[in-house]
Amino acid sequence: MFFKIKKINLKKLYPLLKIEKDITIKGIKPLTTAKADDLTFFDSIKYKSDASLTKSEACITSQKLEKFLPKTTYKIIVKNVLFELSKVVNKIYVNADVDYPDKSLKKPINNKFKDVKFGNNVLIGKNVKIGKGSQIGSNTIIEQAVNIGQNCVIGHNVIIKNTIIGDNVVIQDNNKIGQKGFGFIPLKDKNIKFPHIGKVIIKNNVEIATGCTIDRGSIDDTEIGNNTYLDNQVHVAHNVKIGSNCMIAGQVGFAGSSIIGNNVSIGGQAGISGHLKIGNNVKIGGGSGVVKDIEDGQIVMGYPAVQLKDFLKRNKNSNE
Amino acid sequence: MFFKIKKINLKKLYPLLKIEKDITIKGIKPLTTAKADDLTFFDSIKYKSDASLTKSEACITSQKLEKFLPKTTYKIIVKNVLFELSKVVNKIYVNADVDYPDKSLKKPINNKFKDVKFGNNVLIGKNVKIGKGSQIGSNTIIEQAVNIGQNCVIGHNVIIKNTIIGDNVVIQDNNKIGQKGFGFIPLKDKNIKFPHIGKVIIKNNVEIATGCTIDRGSIDDTEIGNNTYLDNQVHVAHNVKIGSNCMIAGQVGFAGSSIIGNNVSIGGQAGISGHLKIGNNVKIGGGSGVVKDIEDGQIVMGYPAVQLKDFLKRNKNSNE
Amino acid sequence: MFFKIKKINLKKLYPLLKIEKDITIKGIKPLTTAKADDLTFFDSIKYKSDASLTKSEACITSQKLEKFLPKTTYKIIVKNVLFELSKVVNKIYVNADVDYPDKSLKKPINNKFKDVKFGNNVLIGKNVKIGKGSQIGSNTIIEQAVNIGQNCVIGHNVIIKNTIIGDNVVIQDNNKIGQKGFGFIPLKDKNIKFPHIGKVIIKNNVEIATGCTIDRGSIDDTEIGNNTYLDNQVHVAHNVKIGSNCMIAGQVGFAGSSIIGNNVSIGGQAGISGHLKIGNNVKIGGGSGVVKDIEDGQIVMGYPAVQLKDFLKRNKNSNE
Repeated sequence: MFFKIKKINLKKLYPLLKIEKDITIKGIKPLTTAKADDLTFFDSIKYKSDASLTKSEACITSQKLEKFLPKTTYKIIVKNVLFELSKVVNKIYVNADVDYPDKSLKKPINNKFKDVKFGNNVLIGKNVKIGKGSQIGSNTIIEQAVNIGQNCVIGHNVIIKNTIIGDNVVIQDNNKIGQKGFGFIPLKDKNIKFPHIGKVIIKNNVEIATGCTIDRGSIDDTEIGNNTYLDNQVHVAHNVKIGSNCMIAGQVGFAGSSIIGNNVSIGGQAGISGHLKIGNNVKIGGGSGVVKDIEDGQIVMGYPAVQLKDFLKRNKNSNE
Repeated sequence: MFFKIKKINLKKLYPLLKIEKDITIKGIKPLTTAKADDLTFFDSIKYKSDASLTKSEACITSQKLEKFLPKTTYKIIVKNVLFELSKVVNKIYVNADVDYPDKSLKKPINNKFKDVKFGNNVLIGKNVKIGKGSQIGSNTIIEQAVNIGQNCVIGHNVIIKNTIIGDNVVIQDNNKIGQKGFGFIPLKDKNIKFPHIGKVIIKNNVEIATGCTIDRGSIDDTEIGNNTYLDNQVHVAHNVKIGSNCMIAGQVGFAGSSIIGNNVSIGGQAGISGHLKIGNNVKIGGGSGVVKDIEDGQIVMGYPAVQLKDFLKRNKNSNE
Repeated sequence: MFFKIKKINLKKLYPLLKIEKDITIKGIKPLTTAKADDLTFFDSIKYKSDASLTKSEACITSQKLEKFLPKTTYKIIVKNVLFELSKVVNKIYVNADVDYPDKSLKKPINNKFKDVKFGNNVLIGKNVKIGKGSQIGSNTIIEQAVNIGQNCVIGHNVIIKNTIIGDNVVIQDNNKIGQKGFGFIPLKDKNIKFPHIGKVIIKNNVEIATGCTIDRGSIDDTEIGNNTYLDNQVHVAHNVKIGSNCMIAGQVGFAGSSIIGNNVSIGGQAGISGHLKIGNNVKIGGGSGVVKDIEDGQIVMGYPAVQLKDFLKRNKNSNE
């Protein structure tokens, strides 16, 4: 568990709503993964089918969207769904809006981590688990409750928090994984920080080069699929899900909440906008700016990214 | 004081000039902030109105520009203003052309920093001030004379030098703030390093995500305004001034000396060229390359960045 | 020597080939630098003149390309040259496919490094050499066999491995140099990691700002020429060779194996594709995406980059 939860009764949280049932909120989850006693939220027509199937008994939403939710779900109707969500997350979760440095960090105790090799000056938080055969480089910091699998190689100067890592994963020097993402609600006088209660999940055989930043999810999780490789200085924002067997070249950036399929290759410095769906077996040329969903098997390039043949044609014309 | 100054008499510095007055140079400052006994410089017609109002009694400039300066200002006429400036900065300021590691770094003494929480292996230089309620993560280095306000949260692995930070500022892991900027005078045989004597000023309530680099000013300062938020891997070059309440997404880059207004939002991977003026309430789309000044309230996108409606039209045409 | 070599007889390595001569493979090198007893490889028609002049007596190549090699060279004919190459590199070189943290790291012994100043918590591997007058910042890690010249300034938090550095080099904080590059052979089920046995060579008077990543070569070396300056967050991939007196602005990215001439200046956020040749005295505008070779003295801009005059014309037309 990465964030402490204060269990609150739904009636107490929203006293003005006519709630008959006695529901103790266990946590806050996205529409698709919320269970009956998780609070959820629904802020965009894009997710209307997820909304209709949610198991949650309580959902923050707007007047316009409430009709898509199941009849049995209590609707908390507000004007600004994300603003209300950020307020209620802060009521239920402790310290999720600012990354306070972990105060439980200590030098690793060798008899706790059998068959794990540590470099110099490593710092480990409480309840960290590291599988046998793994190696941790010098000056690396692993904060509380992080879980690392077997036979992993973690380089020097890496910082990991709020993250679950599979087996045979290689994380080279100077990667920063699991920190709070960039989520703000822009209000007139002052931007409000959106708390982040998700985590990062890195599957088996992933390799991450040097100087990448992978933010944890806000409500959902950020995920890197099996056998996917990231080059240097890649930026992965909150809630992004990258599939298996992908190759992401240097300085690529993913804005929040995009979903990338399997066997996708992305050239250097390309940017993927937020809330997009990129299919399987897609190839994205270096320097591209992707602003629309891409179907399976497409090859795209350009800013904004278009089919490769259109990109080549466009540039041929403009040079003649 | 971040850089030691050798006080030199103007007559001694420029013996060939006919200088009657006895002026001891106190420092080197931009046209607008120089006082009578600061040396200043004037190298571009762009700054002619600043030149006409300068209080400095001695200014390095060119034959073409000298007429815009006040009559009472001594003019040091040279062919290459910045080259002369770099030479005189090196004569007056010590060690400003190379970032020598601070030799005064030591573990923090707890009774000197009351109500400040330190992680492991923190190193602090002499004359550092940290306000009460602030927290400093592990492996973080704060070089001499840095000033940090109250209730700040500084993450792990952060390096701060030549910087003044306000209250309630959050600086996440692995940010590098206050290092020498990228200033060189390209000469035929060898590039000459331009010394950097400015600082970084970070105002209240700023939040900086992970892996950013914010260079100190060359002669002027670099500034981040109140309540402005920077995402991961943002690069802020020397002398850039970002206003209040701005939101700067991941991997954005600012070239030197640009001035950004208040309430500006900039999408991921956008680049802002040097010496530009971006107004208030401007929105710049992700991936844009901004090469011209932008007026208040504009929405721009593209490379080069144009009005959003023109960007959409241009791309519609080229795809049909 | 950065990687241990197992000396293997060519007959034993390829028992099915009819090899009369008794050749013990000393190492694996590119076509141009291989000596008689180095194994080499030839995978693209682009390198046919190098192939015809190679001194190597054994070369991995394809059926289509073998005719360009000298008659005296043994040809190892395969379908996928790089896949075979990766397999044989792994047989001959130890631990080149994953960057295991150096286990020989220790605090520096002062009487071994005369006239070298170390900050706090520095870690040095075995057989490291550092020239007199050099300074090393705090928390910096220098892995085994790295060679640093005289009067260098290395900042805090730097990690250097598999690298040879000249004199008077400045490497500011948080640079990561010599790590494994991003080389993979995409196979259907699983990407195969390409081992990296090259190094990084940084010549005299180079200055590298903050947060750069410079990968070591795969088979060849990565090189930065005399008096070249790199700004913050620059990414240099494997085998890239940058000439002398170049100025590379912030967030520029170089894909693998490109060769950059002397006196080249590159604006911020530009990207240079792989396997290109950029001439001397070239200027590349900020944000450009270079996808073709560029001849000496050209000024280019755009994505894809074209002559500056064409870039200006193209954008004028599309805005009218």
